[in-house]
Amino acid sequence: MSKKRIVVIGGTAAGPKAAARAKRLDQTAEVTLLQKAPELSMASCGYPYYVSGEVRDRAMLLATPVGVVRDPAFFAGAKGVAALVGTEVTAIDRAARTVAWKRAATGETGHLPYDKLILATGSMPKVPPIPGRELAGVTTLSSLADADGLRAVAAAAKGGQAVIVGGGLIGMETCEALVTAGMAVTVVEALPHILSFLDPELALLVEKHARAKGATIVTGVGISEILGAAGKVTGVRLADGRELPCSLVVMAIGVSPNVALAKAAGLTLGATGGIAVNAHMTTSDPDIYAAGDCVEVLNRLTGKPMLAPYGDLANLEGRVAGENAVLGDKATFPGTIGSGICKVFDFAAASTGLSERRAREAGFEVVTAINAGPDIPGFMGAKPVVSKIVVEAGTGRILGFACVGAGNVNRQAAEMAMAILGGLTVDDVAMADLPYAPPYSLAIDHAIGTAHIVQNKMRGLMQGQSCVAVKGRLDAGETPFLLDVRGPKEFEEMRLGLGETLVPLGQLRKRLGEMPADKNAPIVAYCKVSMRGYEAESILEAAGYTNVTVMEGGLAAWPFALEK
Amino acid sequence: MSKKRIVVIGGTAAGPKAAARAKRLDQTAEVTLLQKAPELSMASCGYPYYVSGEVRDRAMLLATPVGVVRDPAFFAGAKGVAALVGTEVTAIDRAARTVAWKRAATGETGHLPYDKLILATGSMPKVPPIPGRELAGVTTLSSLADADGLRAVAAAAKGGQAVIVGGGLIGMETCEALVTAGMAVTVVEALPHILSFLDPELALLVEKHARAKGATIVTGVGISEILGAAGKVTGVRLADGRELPCSLVVMAIGVSPNVALAKAAGLTLGATGGIAVNAHMTTSDPDIYAAGDCVEVLNRLTGKPMLAPYGDLANLEGRVAGENAVLGDKATFPGTIGSGICKVFDFAAASTGLSERRAREAGFEVVTAINAGPDIPGFMGAKPVVSKIVVEAGTGRILGFACVGAGNVNRQAAEMAMAILGGLTVDDVAMADLPYAPPYSLAIDHAIGTAHIVQNKMRGLMQGQSCVAVKGRLDAGETPFLLDVRGPKEFEEMRLGLGETLVPLGQLRKRLGEMPADKNAPIVAYCKVSMRGYEAESILEAAGYTNVTVMEGGLAAWPFALEK
Repeated sequence: MSKKRIVVIGGTAAGPKAAARAKRLDQTAEVTLLQKAPELSMASCGYPYYVSGEVRDRAMLLATPVGVVRDPAFFAGAKGVAALVGTEVTAIDRAARTVAWKRAATGETGHLPYDKLILATGSMPKVPPIPGRELAGVTTLSSLADADGLRAVAAAAKGGQAVIVGGGLIGMETCEALVTAGMAVTVVEALPHILSFLDPELALLVEKHARAKGATIVTGVGISEILGAAGKVTGVRLADGRELPCSLVVMAIGVSPNVALAKAAGLTLGATGGIAVNAHMTTSDPDIYAAGDCVEVLNRLTGKPMLAPYGDLANLEGRVAGENAVLGDKATFPGTIGSGICKVFDFAAASTGLSERRAREAGFEVVTAINAGPDIPGFMGAKPVVSKIVVEAGTGRILGFACVGAGNVNRQAAEMAMAILGGLTVDDVAMADLPYAPPYSLAIDHAIGTAHIVQNKMRGLMQGQSCVAVKGRLDAGETPFLLDVRGPKEFEEMRLGLGETLVPLGQLRKRLGEMPADKNAPIVAYCKVSMRGYEAESILEAAGYTNVTVMEGGLAAWPFALEK
Repeated sequence: MSKKRIVVIGGTAAGPKAAARAKRLDQTAEVTLLQKAPELSMASCGYPYYVSGEVRDRAMLLATPVGVVRDPAFFAGAKGVAALVGTEVTAIDRAARTVAWKRAATGETGHLPYDKLILATGSMPKVPPIPGRELAGVTTLSSLADADGLRAVAAAAKGGQAVIVGGGLIGMETCEALVTAGMAVTVVEALPHILSFLDPELALLVEKHARAKGATIVTGVGISEILGAAGKVTGVRLADGRELPCSLVVMAIGVSPNVALAKAAGLTLGATGGIAVNAHMTTSDPDIYAAGDCVEVLNRLTGKPMLAPYGDLANLEGRVAGENAVLGDKATFPGTIGSGICKVFDFAAASTGLSERRAREAGFEVVTAINAGPDIPGFMGAKPVVSKIVVEAGTGRILGFACVGAGNVNRQAAEMAMAILGGLTVDDVAMADLPYAPPYSLAIDHAIGTAHIVQNKMRGLMQGQSCVAVKGRLDAGETPFLLDVRGPKEFEEMRLGLGETLVPLGQLRKRLGEMPADKNAPIVAYCKVSMRGYEAESILEAAGYTNVTVMEGGLAAWPFALEK
């Protein structure tokens, strides 16, 4: 058998994984990795922490867990892979089965034959055609060179002002990094709220937190122009005319799959613009695989292709592509459910599966619930989390779960991702047997509690509305009877201040006379997290009230200003 | 409709949950809770942290998240439940549908009629008939009174010596509490290792950690006598004759279901000794439910009943019992998979599903793998975790997963519990889409990596053995070629010192001449975590070696002493 020649284009995540996997499974194969950038296997998701200075040593972004930098010598020795850096592939000749390459530093060019080719060309930051985008001081956070530049700017610009265009994952991580580095940061998001993978109920809580940490968040308006003088950024102008002075603009409105080579080679692209692949990560050419940010993958919940440019999926896709390139198309990548998490100051914000908005867009009829509460018992030093669950009406199948807060969002999101992957229903999660001890979770785990709430709603045992929905009713001029059922001390410390009536839950059975005379009058009951609000609904309904709603998550989930 | 009378016996976890749920779902019901102890809704899983002083305020163990103590007034006002404390039920008259009660403080007695009765009588600590068990200074950690006593002893006995009999969950939590409180602690476990829910590979790592934290762990030998003078404990004698001086003995060899009332009333008990219930938590009497530590429940993996005395399950079972008591037998508790976690100093130790031992005992043919590594990327401040996965041969279904270490065991165990509940296979988990960002997980999540390893083993791509198995071979006189493929600096810092040969992975392809001349000679390859060990196997097999084994988890999973 002649040696199989495997060529991999791209050296960040999917590429190195594919190359290493291919070589491990076929030590006779000649595996060559071509990388345009000077570095290999960069931990690009770590760039924000490098910009902030939290990651002190640049080499750590490039090193194995024991500190060996993943350079060409490492790839040759440890992985048996020939890695060529600073080497751009300029064309693919599918008929000849060769790629043409060029080394920018030397001008050298050449061709490399392949039996199987793996494209891992990644993505590029979107930069819309805004006037001024060419000014010095306008950057993205896409490459390690970008990160080096931003780190230097941030370190030098103590007290300076930065504008981040886009309040997605990278935008918010960069926001934290620059605030941590001492800059005054404004995030400008054209959509109604940041972190579009979240529904507004949770996204607005993250915004509130980011503001409390000193960031300025501007939503619902885009950038019309980047202003400058002498070739340098001096500010941005928003679509509504406002001007924000700044010396640094970070464009973080998302990424596009880097498909130029694939397109030029005539490979099929999908409707999303990513390279079309099947479950084996095979492109329209059976000798060419693709993996990572450059492809579109199946959303397992909607059944439709989507772009999912995440480092974890890139690794899994690369593993499949690498294996199939040497062993034939047997391994499969089943697709994504859209799991993500990001750190925004002291909050984590995570989502897995579909948000309510995306579920409805995909045609699902859904029931949702919001739950706020501690992550672990109070006596162990609890921190709050707020979650939202999205459930398919009828089947009870969990379609989505999101969670934000200072508490242990990570466990909640990871376990619910597995629940969604397992096709679990609300009833399944409501009775799930999860590891419990006070340092690690509540006796009734937060996500299980969330399932209990939506289960109660689905069975008609609880009528609930989110804080955002209640605020919407108030803003629309409705005047429900707002019933706060907390204790007087709690009321003194924090309250809506919107004309609510305080009747502590423990006294409610005896003070029904203070409720509206009209038993059909709308009542909105709540407490700190609305567990007592739910008890109140139960008591009021037993007393004949017909229009009682619980404000889900209570004051802990109220994303707007409070009286105090 | 006449008001339904619901009587609940037991006020710790399952009882209060059942009572509150019943009342919420039927506000017309008269719900009465009878509790022998003076307190209600005690967070008993928090006792160790109260003993150590970490939980400063006793009331926090009894309070709601907003600090309201759950006393009878709270239950009456907030929950609409009449809770009678200090009130022991002495008998159940099933024909008359009444319970007889007695108040120890006053000698008062009485009867209470019920339409539906819920037993939540909990468990009692096992105290074997060891001579000396009646001495002052011998205690358990079962009640809040026990916790009060232990806390006082620990606070007073700075420098004193304590022996804990039993190295299970409570034993090890108590060990940490007493060491933290300043005592010299010896844990005596009659079984070969502590934490019997773990297989030895992981349990021995926890022992190693506990020893490093100052605890003495004695395994494989029981206690034959508790020694005393003047009615007070002075030491314990082990079955092998050794004597350990101490002023405090904590018996923590487990709990038995408290079934005296149920047995006297003629209710059916299961083979395990717990009250037999169906999925509706109904006992052999359709008007009597039972929930919590006193019942036996279905193990969903073995299909057999088991005792599962855990606070989280008690709550879920109580919720089902309470609902069914008022709405009829519709709600179901699906059973347990045996999920648990505990903190042992800076380690967490968790298990979900079956250990290898329990899976084999249940008749499963299994494949296992051990994985050691960081919980998050090194540049974010990783901490190590070690896990073991147990997979059903043939189907690939995950039967069990355990994880220990200083890193984020909690997320790993919770997500894998959900994977087991969802019936996921190794292939499913190997391609799972979990939330990833550097502060929260690896790009290839640790549990996904563990699935990759066992998948490689099942496909014959990797031959692996645990450190315990390798040690067993060495102890049995085998002399495999031990191949350490780390770097020289790593080798200087830490090594087995058992005659191993160091050939860094990156040089292995060129230094095959240093391998045994006999291509069939047994070789054991490893590194720090054995990722490089696996690469080495692949290289050596390609070079014709036929008997290469990877020592799974590498030195990070080696639970025995190292040369350095």
